[in-house]
Amino acid sequence: MERAEFLKEGERLDSLQRDGYDIIQHPGKFCFGMDAVLLSAFAKVKKDETVLDLCTGTGVLPILLCAKTEGREFAGLEIQKESADMASRSVTMNGLSERVRIIEGDLKEAEAFFASASFDVVTCNPPYMIRDNGLVNPADSLAIARHEIACTLDDVLKAAVYVLKPGGRFYMVHRPFRLAEILRKMSEAGLEPKGLRIVYPKADREPNMVLVEGKKGGRSGLVMEKPLIIMDENNVYTKEVSDIYGPGEE
Amino acid sequence: MERAEFLKEGERLDSLQRDGYDIIQHPGKFCFGMDAVLLSAFAKVKKDETVLDLCTGTGVLPILLCAKTEGREFAGLEIQKESADMASRSVTMNGLSERVRIIEGDLKEAEAFFASASFDVVTCNPPYMIRDNGLVNPADSLAIARHEIACTLDDVLKAAVYVLKPGGRFYMVHRPFRLAEILRKMSEAGLEPKGLRIVYPKADREPNMVLVEGKKGGRSGLVMEKPLIIMDENNVYTKEVSDIYGPGEE
Repeated sequence: MERAEFLKEGERLDSLQRDGYDIIQHPGKFCFGMDAVLLSAFAKVKKDETVLDLCTGTGVLPILLCAKTEGREFAGLEIQKESADMASRSVTMNGLSERVRIIEGDLKEAEAFFASASFDVVTCNPPYMIRDNGLVNPADSLAIARHEIACTLDDVLKAAVYVLKPGGRFYMVHRPFRLAEILRKMSEAGLEPKGLRIVYPKADREPNMVLVEGKKGGRSGLVMEKPLIIMDENNVYTKEVSDIYGPGEE
Repeated sequence: MERAEFLKEGERLDSLQRDGYDIIQHPGKFCFGMDAVLLSAFAKVKKDETVLDLCTGTGVLPILLCAKTEGREFAGLEIQKESADMASRSVTMNGLSERVRIIEGDLKEAEAFFASASFDVVTCNPPYMIRDNGLVNPADSLAIARHEIACTLDDVLKAAVYVLKPGGRFYMVHRPFRLAEILRKMSEAGLEPKGLRIVYPKADREPNMVLVEGKKGGRSGLVMEKPLIIMDENNVYTKEVSDIYGPGEE
């Protein structure tokens, strides 16, 4: 079956620049950004570990982590039907059906889909924006991906702590303006913040992303990493970011 | 009176590189570091505002802020008698007695020294290390400056929120490994984290300091600043750090 045969009307294929994998996306819907790619590099998945990606969207995290790590099984949970459908087709198209499964469902009902304490790692690239009832259309799929309409930070943390094994790791990318709230709520939820990396667009600019690691049942004590700087003074990707994106395809 | 006449045995004068000010320190006791200097640049003091520095040590923060800002009055509270004595003599020696006062006392008894809601700004360069009963000598003045022997983070936040006016600002320098705890406890204490700047020794190194700003009664929402990078790739202070330190004296 040709790759193009997996596409529905209006969809396109985007290269993940890893192992020849492509991902099906729709230009009018939410498409993954650098956030997801940086999270796939920040998350540490060891050999034979199991990984659940919450808010998986078109499945970019499980597919990238499948390419980059020796994890055994990857699951992605997505509430939006169209996104989950694209993710499932991308998994099949890339020949990953044995290692990756996509579940359409609501993370607020995680116990309906997963046993408690059943994953080693949880990743999440959640909606960043606090819901503002006046400004967003709650039926709009882009708004659902960006705003806390279908799930809040609290919902994400509650689902993560439920599915994680004791000592399991939680990796999330988010926006700096919510960092204080994120660290506080992670601690309150039982996902003690253990790692933090700040992402700066350039060395002399305010950060635009934060990458956080939590540990289920961990003790207090944070390790902050070196800054992740996206572009050098000539507006060219730094070597680290180029390496994260990978060599590209021929 | 000559400057040297202010010195007691074993003490020395260190230049603050600002307005000809010097500070009396004892090489065997705790001497201020870059932390205090960076905090003096991070803290914003507007015209006619009043400032209290907790854990003031030899008084470097009030004296530097007096030189750098148009604040009206600066107070420094210090529990260790010898440090408070050096701080008081530095104030007199620099001719700052009308704007700066040093109080010897325990911040856990802040209500004995200050009225509630009486300051616009509180600064603090506190002991960073969690008390470890096995390793430190609680009678050692260096240990008191570095470890939470005489006061804890909770004590500092409690004193700060007591003396600050509603909307008043709290500025603190601390270590990254406690950032999650700091932001959570600030929020719990009623000093909502509003500003955060991460200090990196070099652009490719883990951070070694964090500068945090809180607002008494503020709403949730953090502004993270561009990174503060101390040295460039040639191990020379960056322009920003050189500017913070000042032009030096002739």
